Amino acid sequence: MALKPRSVNLTQVFEWNDGNIGRKEDYLAAEEPLEIRVGDSPLSVIMRTPGHDLELAAGFLLTEGLIERRDQIISLKEAAAESDANVNRGNLVAVQLDPQSMPDTEKMRRNFFAASSCGICGKASIDSVRSRTLRAPNPDFRLDPELLLRLPALLRESQAVFGRTGGLHAAALFDSAGNPLILREDIGRHNAVDKVIGWALLENRLPLSDFVLLVSGRGGFEIIQKAIMAGVPVVGSVSAPSSLAVQLAREMGLTLIGFLRERRFVIYAGEERVSKNSS
Amino acid sequence: MALKPRSVNLTQVFEWNDGNIGRKEDYLAAEEPLEIRVGDSPLSVIMRTPGHDLELAAGFLLTEGLIERRDQIISLKEAAAESDANVNRGNLVAVQLDPQSMPDTEKMRRNFFAASSCGICGKASIDSVRSRTLRAPNPDFRLDPELLLRLPALLRESQAVFGRTGGLHAAALFDSAGNPLILREDIGRHNAVDKVIGWALLENRLPLSDFVLLVSGRGGFEIIQKAIMAGVPVVGSVSAPSSLAVQLAREMGLTLIGFLRERRFVIYAGEERVSKNSS
Repeated sequence: MALKPRSVNLTQVFEWNDGNIGRKEDYLAAEEPLEIRVGDSPLSVIMRTPGHDLELAAGFLLTEGLIERRDQIISLKEAAAESDANVNRGNLVAVQLDPQSMPDTEKMRRNFFAASSCGICGKASIDSVRSRTLRAPNPDFRLDPELLLRLPALLRESQAVFGRTGGLHAAALFDSAGNPLILREDIGRHNAVDKVIGWALLENRLPLSDFVLLVSGRGGFEIIQKAIMAGVPVVGSVSAPSSLAVQLAREMGLTLIGFLRERRFVIYAGEERVSKNSS
Repeated sequence: MALKPRSVNLTQVFEWNDGNIGRKEDYLAAEEPLEIRVGDSPLSVIMRTPGHDLELAAGFLLTEGLIERRDQIISLKEAAAESDANVNRGNLVAVQLDPQSMPDTEKMRRNFFAASSCGICGKASIDSVRSRTLRAPNPDFRLDPELLLRLPALLRESQAVFGRTGGLHAAALFDSAGNPLILREDIGRHNAVDKVIGWALLENRLPLSDFVLLVSGRGGFEIIQKAIMAGVPVVGSVSAPSSLAVQLAREMGLTLIGFLRERRFVIYAGEERVSKNSS
């Protein structure tokens, strides 16, 4: 009988310190494959940090464009794989979708494969990258620059696990007054975002028209795509976005902030939402 | 006529600095989708930083287990997609494989989808994650701890692009005397590793039995898997590995080093290769 997977594992390591070597115990960020199965068909295997797997699966289905609404999910549960119940216990999420919105799973398998829950993975043609159904985010949302500056500290304060391993990414939603709505962690940036969005979907909080999404790592194309699928108007990061992330944010009217550090940040897109007259 | 994609793009941004806002030009790490096509069939779309695309494709084929040797590649070339030659020029690599080693591309598509070139992406069953053909790396390789300590500085010195955008990962190979063999950068860690390994494959340098692979980011499961597929005996990082990366390294006899910082590092697996008696 295997234990439920945990987000942090303890292991014995050797530490070399200025010529001296010693054994010690060290915490590792847990990484395990998660299979998402829709009906009877495997949809994808994602390398993720165990925990909040139902949210991850729900978020993945939404941000990959497989579903648009909460009520398309008939059931969502953790399950055991037939082949090796001990090893895979807790590493399988089974989803039943409304038959009317049930996509062709073979087509899904071809088009929506993913790792670390990244958005355009496995799209078997470049031509389909930009063809998603994308909604423009809330044009009226405003955010005070002084509040933006406080967000990285608020994120760090909430990351209990981060301080122990140095190995986890975080994603969090804040309202325009800086109140945190939800924070999730994962070894994969995309997974942390999907867990946050999946939580919001399951709590019937979508679209996230009045929230900022803060991510701890780089903002690539897929992060922006996922934010747009959830209706998020502002994405912030302490690091640099990619060229394609900036291009997508500009085309879709999303505000993209990078290099949030001390008393400075860079606005890559949607500068009109950064304003002291926040509502 | 589109220009060849570049690894860095220049764009206009707004900088907010302690209450003052101004326009400036900023460099962004380029991100573009790359389609890898085997024969007539699309195999995968990878979000990557343009540059060294043939190496990326070759490395991906090897580290995903589609090929084992250089001579299985009959041709490897950049091509233009039919649909939109301007946009996609330079974003398609076409590969012809030896018909005798030609895999079933539909099966390949199902099993080897990927994003950011991560190894187990799209494996449509958890049971297949650990089933790769993996070779044990060189047991006789030894590395002086003082040399290990110098590697992060050597890596940083070589990263011309990194200093301009803050947005690129790097992977590099060093011999046991600290001489760099090759360094590649990409917005995706897995891609940087595949570019390095693909270069080695195309130069007939595999297996990489006498080299250390240094990566700038976290060491997850797929990084270790890729290193093992290329015969690399030691993987080093300035950051933390995941639990599954450590488990895989221990099971396969690969040396895994983390937290390479100043006068300290942690040995997570294969401690016997860290020795002052380096050959």
